[in-house]
Amino acid sequence: MSRVVCDVTVSLDGFVAGPEQSLEHPLGRGGEDLHRWQFAEGDEHRRERDAIVAARAFIMGRNMFGPVRGPWPDASWTGWWGDDPPYHGPVFVLTHHERPDLPRDGGTTFHFATSGITDALARARAAADGGDVAIAGGAATIAQFLEDDLVDELRLHVAPVLLGSGERLLDGVTEFRLVPVSARATPLVTHLVYGREAAGVAESLG
Amino acid sequence: MSRVVCDVTVSLDGFVAGPEQSLEHPLGRGGEDLHRWQFAEGDEHRRERDAIVAARAFIMGRNMFGPVRGPWPDASWTGWWGDDPPYHGPVFVLTHHERPDLPRDGGTTFHFATSGITDALARARAAADGGDVAIAGGAATIAQFLEDDLVDELRLHVAPVLLGSGERLLDGVTEFRLVPVSARATPLVTHLVYGREAAGVAESLG
Repeated sequence: MSRVVCDVTVSLDGFVAGPEQSLEHPLGRGGEDLHRWQFAEGDEHRRERDAIVAARAFIMGRNMFGPVRGPWPDASWTGWWGDDPPYHGPVFVLTHHERPDLPRDGGTTFHFATSGITDALARARAAADGGDVAIAGGAATIAQFLEDDLVDELRLHVAPVLLGSGERLLDGVTEFRLVPVSARATPLVTHLVYGREAAGVAESLG
Repeated sequence: MSRVVCDVTVSLDGFVAGPEQSLEHPLGRGGEDLHRWQFAEGDEHRRERDAIVAARAFIMGRNMFGPVRGPWPDASWTGWWGDDPPYHGPVFVLTHHERPDLPRDGGTTFHFATSGITDALARARAAADGGDVAIAGGAATIAQFLEDDLVDELRLHVAPVLLGSGERLLDGVTEFRLVPVSARATPLVTHLVYGREAAGVAESLG
């Protein structure tokens, strides 16, 4: 059975994006500081980066796909990522508004899922063919999957910065059902993994 | 030179206490879940517990010392901790209102520091005699020391629970100047240490 995984980078005060998000600054003021680890040179974060792209299907909220709201006026918006998006697989975009599949270069195809998250997840699982399904964001979509206990592994990348305001990751989630699995500190980010089964349980009984 | 250290347990959504704090429930609704790791049996958390009590002097906000507000009506409030508080050393309580020193059993003496945090820290450093000074809480006091860049090591114990609302740790802190030093996941809590110098810098250059 494929797992549902989720990678998300947050500030130490729990924001996935800073205030004043805009088309030009989708991460808001200070938001770029969160993701410095993803662009650092060297192999320090290779394992975490490899894990992010290892999923075989992806689900994202419509606001992550783009700024267009309401019914699609036309097919001109094709995502933030240019001709060759980094997903290289099927991406299910949660929306209330139908739109034909949108194939891009490099194996990425955007599918528009209009029947809710459960149906979108079923389609993504089928497409992943035993591989992992990744919840790609944004924060509201991740929160919805966490609240419905659909995430098997949350990989939280905590950047040592404060944003003070902006978009919080865990707003609206009432219960956290995952347990700590691993943690690793690096100069730019601390990688925390939460999953279904705790690491070190045997050790803690000693 | 003695270091200034700070241990604080927070929920995954960044709260040090839940909503509806009261005399009977000083940690608020759900707040007890934060501290389960401190009462767990076994040696899993021995290192972190030893570190908490290793400081030689302590500073706390008045609200952590007790619920009395304004001028001290009398000397009847002597803290939450009974006759033998767990500090076993000098504790400087930040307050605007003078009060004589309050010696307790086991080596704990409460001093009432009315000249601001810088002066309180100078007194605590002198009392620690080369040992660490611990900022014992509460959240507002910790935030004030962080904002003034007076904390050398922040030891954040992140419990895998959500409180949803309550008292946030990092409200009012505009810049975080510490860097990740270490991280360790356990079933009940993830121990994160932030300090002046990052761990693993050399490794990250490889």
